[in-house]
Amino acid sequence: MGSKYPPSMRGCLPLWTLLLVVAFIVIFFFFTSYDTSSQDPKELTDTYRVLQDVTIMMALGFGFINSSLRRYGWSSMAFNLFLLALTVQWAVLLNGFLEQLSPQKVVIKLSSIKLATMSAMSVLISAGAVLGKANLVQLVLMALVEVTAFGVMRMIQAKYFVKDDHVNMMHIHVFAAYFGLMVAWSFRRPLHGRMMEKYQTEKRSSLFGMLGTLFLWIFWPSFNSALLPNERKNAMFNTYYALAVSTVTAISVSSLAHPQGKINMHHIHNAVLAGGVAVGTSCYLIRSPWLAMVLGLVAGLISTGGALSLTMRFNNMLDLHDTSGVYYTFGLPGLLGEIAHIVLITLQDDWTKSTRVEYQLLLDIGALSLALAMGLIIGLLTGLVLNLKIWKGPHMSNYFDDQLYWKFPHLAVGF
Amino acid sequence: MGSKYPPSMRGCLPLWTLLLVVAFIVIFFFFTSYDTSSQDPKELTDTYRVLQDVTIMMALGFGFINSSLRRYGWSSMAFNLFLLALTVQWAVLLNGFLEQLSPQKVVIKLSSIKLATMSAMSVLISAGAVLGKANLVQLVLMALVEVTAFGVMRMIQAKYFVKDDHVNMMHIHVFAAYFGLMVAWSFRRPLHGRMMEKYQTEKRSSLFGMLGTLFLWIFWPSFNSALLPNERKNAMFNTYYALAVSTVTAISVSSLAHPQGKINMHHIHNAVLAGGVAVGTSCYLIRSPWLAMVLGLVAGLISTGGALSLTMRFNNMLDLHDTSGVYYTFGLPGLLGEIAHIVLITLQDDWTKSTRVEYQLLLDIGALSLALAMGLIIGLLTGLVLNLKIWKGPHMSNYFDDQLYWKFPHLAVGF
Amino acid sequence: MGSKYPPSMRGCLPLWTLLLVVAFIVIFFFFTSYDTSSQDPKELTDTYRVLQDVTIMMALGFGFINSSLRRYGWSSMAFNLFLLALTVQWAVLLNGFLEQLSPQKVVIKLSSIKLATMSAMSVLISAGAVLGKANLVQLVLMALVEVTAFGVMRMIQAKYFVKDDHVNMMHIHVFAAYFGLMVAWSFRRPLHGRMMEKYQTEKRSSLFGMLGTLFLWIFWPSFNSALLPNERKNAMFNTYYALAVSTVTAISVSSLAHPQGKINMHHIHNAVLAGGVAVGTSCYLIRSPWLAMVLGLVAGLISTGGALSLTMRFNNMLDLHDTSGVYYTFGLPGLLGEIAHIVLITLQDDWTKSTRVEYQLLLDIGALSLALAMGLIIGLLTGLVLNLKIWKGPHMSNYFDDQLYWKFPHLAVGF
Repeated sequence: MGSKYPPSMRGCLPLWTLLLVVAFIVIFFFFTSYDTSSQDPKELTDTYRVLQDVTIMMALGFGFINSSLRRYGWSSMAFNLFLLALTVQWAVLLNGFLEQLSPQKVVIKLSSIKLATMSAMSVLISAGAVLGKANLVQLVLMALVEVTAFGVMRMIQAKYFVKDDHVNMMHIHVFAAYFGLMVAWSFRRPLHGRMMEKYQTEKRSSLFGMLGTLFLWIFWPSFNSALLPNERKNAMFNTYYALAVSTVTAISVSSLAHPQGKINMHHIHNAVLAGGVAVGTSCYLIRSPWLAMVLGLVAGLISTGGALSLTMRFNNMLDLHDTSGVYYTFGLPGLLGEIAHIVLITLQDDWTKSTRVEYQLLLDIGALSLALAMGLIIGLLTGLVLNLKIWKGPHMSNYFDDQLYWKFPHLAVGF
Repeated sequence: MGSKYPPSMRGCLPLWTLLLVVAFIVIFFFFTSYDTSSQDPKELTDTYRVLQDVTIMMALGFGFINSSLRRYGWSSMAFNLFLLALTVQWAVLLNGFLEQLSPQKVVIKLSSIKLATMSAMSVLISAGAVLGKANLVQLVLMALVEVTAFGVMRMIQAKYFVKDDHVNMMHIHVFAAYFGLMVAWSFRRPLHGRMMEKYQTEKRSSLFGMLGTLFLWIFWPSFNSALLPNERKNAMFNTYYALAVSTVTAISVSSLAHPQGKINMHHIHNAVLAGGVAVGTSCYLIRSPWLAMVLGLVAGLISTGGALSLTMRFNNMLDLHDTSGVYYTFGLPGLLGEIAHIVLITLQDDWTKSTRVEYQLLLDIGALSLALAMGLIIGLLTGLVLNLKIWKGPHMSNYFDDQLYWKFPHLAVGF
Repeated sequence: MGSKYPPSMRGCLPLWTLLLVVAFIVIFFFFTSYDTSSQDPKELTDTYRVLQDVTIMMALGFGFINSSLRRYGWSSMAFNLFLLALTVQWAVLLNGFLEQLSPQKVVIKLSSIKLATMSAMSVLISAGAVLGKANLVQLVLMALVEVTAFGVMRMIQAKYFVKDDHVNMMHIHVFAAYFGLMVAWSFRRPLHGRMMEKYQTEKRSSLFGMLGTLFLWIFWPSFNSALLPNERKNAMFNTYYALAVSTVTAISVSSLAHPQGKINMHHIHNAVLAGGVAVGTSCYLIRSPWLAMVLGLVAGLISTGGALSLTMRFNNMLDLHDTSGVYYTFGLPGLLGEIAHIVLITLQDDWTKSTRVEYQLLLDIGALSLALAMGLIIGLLTGLVLNLKIWKGPHMSNYFDDQLYWKFPHLAVGF
């Protein structure tokens, strides 16, 4: 068994990341300063609370949602935290530079960290698709590329397409899902036998997965309303309703699809959140609950439907293996949400100034296409680079196995 | 083993629930609108935070507190989430209709969702008593009946007995405990042998149960003060003290009762919360910490005492099996709280206007009797209906067993 | 096996603690009253939120961080909650008496409970060092002594050294770590063989440990800024950055230290938090992110370094066994933070009034020395007292074993 182990990560990971940390410190030293303007303390508290909610989603939610793989629980949790801590640092810098596009000092506000944490979600989503197949060095590289691409995409959109911060941010689901899928695609290899066994969910740890799902479920209204200071109420309302309906739908459809009416835990972990994803972009626009509920219903249907029909097809036809079902958790409901947003914008504008409709429609479609295209292309390129041998990626026999990365207690006799 | 399986849930559950979802959407379409009045953003944030705390209690707290059954962890978690998502939708509508009693549109505010989530707690409490013995269809039916009965009870109380929203809401513990017990009673069957084995708590998953308990413990002050905008400070104070004392008491008494001084995890899961329940109704009235502490002490005593003496008696004499100890977690401390409230109100009024005392006393006793009576009667009726064969309830040999409802990974070879 | 069991805890624990509860109630009855002054509701809400965050850290964070011992999960969780509930009651009283130093009634505010909960952290830290080796009676005694010593230390500091509440509170890490180490030292006994096996972390439950770590990680900015109403923004900023860098550093160094680059879960559980500890005292002083990041980097290095090199040395040379690594989680990073604070204060004052520098320097060093000395001396004395036979401490063969304290389900046939 030992012979299958790849050359040690030792020479690679710590060197890289410690260098990175030092580099960040140097950049922060020369190019940043804290926001020293006095701020309304109530507003500060409010921003802090939203930041806290978002951090809970990223660290606890995404940390636990993928922890139910039979032998990959430690890595899912810890790599997630590592990527989060690293990405936020880089995203704060990057967003600052992109915003001003000049070499003067970046002023860091509490809302910059909020934005950076939200951007880091793109990395955590994509990482789900290659979970268990890439080592930490590969994931770090992917994280840096992805969050940079996402930042650039948002800047382009803000300049040429849609000014609104919220709408730009909500492209994250589609962008990250396709990015992750392309990376996973370049890792395509036939999976069978013993590997599938490791890939099984364990009954016990599924409760940990559920814990992650519930944290995401509970704090999703905070995420959807985080960049909407004025339309916050509607955003919260609609997210609540969409989530409630997609939960009921997902469980019902999962039961409907099984010959004996049994429910599949995988569907719950994922499809329960589909409503929140689908309602994300347009949550500030929707003016009555039924519309949010319809979106939740459709999102629950396509998400569970996707899990039922696409998993096998991806595996067999494309050799594409999407570890944690990123495509039907975020990709499909995200697409639904984008389309719903375009339709709603069009309908709404229709009633006011008819001249602007077509132009606005074009802009929105353009922004969505940009997100899709950048996700697909940069994801593909990143995947190709990550497949180079220099990263010493794990051998297939070590996929989904903690043993490669962790010093286990029973070996640590002296400890 | 297969032959003991009941006819598939497939024909029943998804049909029912999807129909229900569509029906809700139609009702929301015709009869509701969002609150469009402009609101102080700080107040909105505050309501949202309280709503979030309550949702954490319902989804994480109640989700995990019952997850420690050896083979029923998945179902406890997922059914809890399902019931929550479904009940909140119905409770928002119901409370709206009951409040105005006219066919005009219901205006949904963020506080309506808060109230609906709190009402949903009645369902989650009662579900604990029949956990593992009723299938999801039966639970959905129970949820709809119970939350309707609870809403009607609150409306009657508000009209004829006590106007105060908080006091009405706090009848939830007594109402839900007796409702659940009556439903459990109509499911009475002798439990022995293999079934008791499944009913055992598993050592490992007890930490999940503890997680649920802690979430409830931490956020209970939010729950008790949620409907008290003006007396919030006292409500928080008293709940903190009562919880602290009942925790210490419960653990001590549990150790005292065992011949070797060993502690019983069951008692901790339940009795630790007794202080919060007992202080619920009167938390706004109590003006010094010692009184809250005494209530916490007594609540801890009767809750652990109940767990020690009543469990066997219920089982043997009444054939009543209260899966998660609803009676001594919520029922007994709830009763204590109600009585304490009546005594405190009487004492307080005594000093001011002596003429009103007796009348007020009558009203309070009336309100409590109504809660008890409605819980018992409607619970009994619901239990009788749920025992009809058309619901295809699980056979006794499948009690406390996830296998009936879940597609397990090791069967899912193709996945 | 049964013969090794110590005499029953029964005669001891419940008697003690129930007496204690009653005594507290009597003291509260005679000597306390709630704060009845009207308060800005927004401010109240804000204090409540901070209190809630701190409670989450204490109950969930410290509860779960030590739950990964193979056979000691129940006790770690439940004893932690018990100690928290008991200590908070005593700390509120104590802080009140120490503050006024007169026999008049103590007025309890919501911020008193916040302060008491923060002080209770000293007990939870120290308890980590003797976890699995002391029974609950010993822990209760330790808790009462420690929180009293900590309160007295803070009062002396406030009177003679540094007035600032925040700086005084932040001595908690150093104080509690040395206190715990001294108690652990007086419990020193050679540990080997079967005991070490029980001491192993279990793979599965490590996810619970991670849960605790994450709760601490997420809410640490709240803890560090809890007593800083005016410099809150900087405190949050700096804590975020220090935590992010120490996380990346800890994981990298842990991998660097292993011949095959494997990561050690123990290091993550502990060293990830080192940044938050190290930046604690000076978080209000630091005016740019790079400095916080450097502190995080150094803290991550010494914390992981300590875990790597000191664990064995402590065990072999001093026979000192620090169960949950209190020394390198809180002790070393705490010392680093204190030194950094003194340096920063000196540098800052240097630029303003040069006469005050030396005096201030002396005061700061004095305060730190006091914390160290009191931690060491009172910890040692407490340890000696706890080693008396009257406490019926567990026999070594029962170290790290839940079985001594818990009634297990498989024994509870009748239940």
